Amino acid sequence: MENRRPLILISNDDSVDAKGIYTLADCCPEDADIIIVAPDTQQSGKSSALTVGAPLRITAHPDHGNARVFSVSGTPVDCVKLALHAIVPRKPDLILAGINHGSNSGCNVIYSGTMGAVIEGCNEGIVSCGFSILQHSPDPDFSMCAPYVRSMIARLLAEGLPEGVCLNVNMPARVAPQGVRVCRAARGYWTEEYRKYTDPSGNPFFWLTGRFVNLEREAVDTDEYWLDNKYIAVVPVMVDYTAHGSIDALAERFNTAAE
Amino acid sequence: MENRRPLILISNDDSVDAKGIYTLADCCPEDADIIIVAPDTQQSGKSSALTVGAPLRITAHPDHGNARVFSVSGTPVDCVKLALHAIVPRKPDLILAGINHGSNSGCNVIYSGTMGAVIEGCNEGIVSCGFSILQHSPDPDFSMCAPYVRSMIARLLAEGLPEGVCLNVNMPARVAPQGVRVCRAARGYWTEEYRKYTDPSGNPFFWLTGRFVNLEREAVDTDEYWLDNKYIAVVPVMVDYTAHGSIDALAERFNTAAE
Repeated sequence: MENRRPLILISNDDSVDAKGIYTLADCCPEDADIIIVAPDTQQSGKSSALTVGAPLRITAHPDHGNARVFSVSGTPVDCVKLALHAIVPRKPDLILAGINHGSNSGCNVIYSGTMGAVIEGCNEGIVSCGFSILQHSPDPDFSMCAPYVRSMIARLLAEGLPEGVCLNVNMPARVAPQGVRVCRAARGYWTEEYRKYTDPSGNPFFWLTGRFVNLEREAVDTDEYWLDNKYIAVVPVMVDYTAHGSIDALAERFNTAAE
Repeated sequence: MENRRPLILISNDDSVDAKGIYTLADCCPEDADIIIVAPDTQQSGKSSALTVGAPLRITAHPDHGNARVFSVSGTPVDCVKLALHAIVPRKPDLILAGINHGSNSGCNVIYSGTMGAVIEGCNEGIVSCGFSILQHSPDPDFSMCAPYVRSMIARLLAEGLPEGVCLNVNMPARVAPQGVRVCRAARGYWTEEYRKYTDPSGNPFFWLTGRFVNLEREAVDTDEYWLDNKYIAVVPVMVDYTAHGSIDALAERFNTAAE
């Protein structure tokens, strides 16, 4: 190969201004080429949304150490797609997203813009991994998690991941992690989701709030369990959403000839 | 039960102005209570995005037949969440989305706002199904698919779905369907995704375009295969994204004690 330095593409959903993305870049090996392509505005909760029917712009920013830095006027998926199309000089060896300021455990993976970027990378056939810390503040303390992030990135570069599988890594905040556990996402949902207000004209409006309900409080093999016990929880995520195990039973019910 | 009429909540991503959502309402049984809650603007490609840190408004519209109609100033997921929180009088028996003007087959399920609404419903424990037709125009001809949609809705109300599984139904356009086939989504990705332009000031911008690459052209059990053969393709979709089959192998590699 002409160029044996690994290329790492990094995105997030907290924007190019977030501390977490630069911490993530600092956890990459020194012999890697690093390109950061992040949204120019906060994109939390954007899932795998992409921009349809509107233009996207790319803006170059000053380097961070040896990492090149760009922002895109769109979603995390837009960042990955446009980076692959127009920014990176070759196919990346690894796509990382985060470090997200706040949890993406449990059912949050459905809504996470961080994991939207990761799922996009995985669907493109690239080893992809998202990192989040359970501290929703502008200035989380990443120091106690950083050695684990560094170690996982080195391992991902060396060993890759199974085809069609990416990782959702959530890390406890304000504590030295007890270790790492690969596990499944806890099933759950959000409840009491909106606060109702009345505007000065007397018209109602609603604002998202609510809290996560873990439907599996007794389970000892979920990300929520391991995070409660101060472990880093690593959930392997499938990009194939087909419920293969249900096809035969549903085919018996729904398959028809022409009506 | 005090009220035995089934309640059906209908949303989409093409907005409250789209023809497809009213066609879908017209395919529901006459003895059902129907509530339409749709985005007030086009939300194609919004996936499971939700609105964080901004207000949402609900607007009432004139009834469509016996269906009540509302719009929400957000995404398809916002519509379902806010409908369940503030609009429906009781938990719906069924959540439908569509009929989408355009395909959601193959990897489009990742980005589809239609399927975002369906996955949200499924995660709330409600039987949920999305319908799409392979005609991306403001005025698709739904007439040849309507009998199938009507039949599937009746069956979903009568029989439900396996827990944690929802349906992604794609229908051929401009042809009498040959029948219905339950199948898996074809693996694939989008290519040549952006066209590059130069604005009047000489600055570049990018616009999403591209075409779907089916990585499984030879397969005879995918949604793309059945749609090519003029069948209605029904893909069961899992809300649980955990790659359960990869947990043990990855645990051997990544599990650690404290570092």
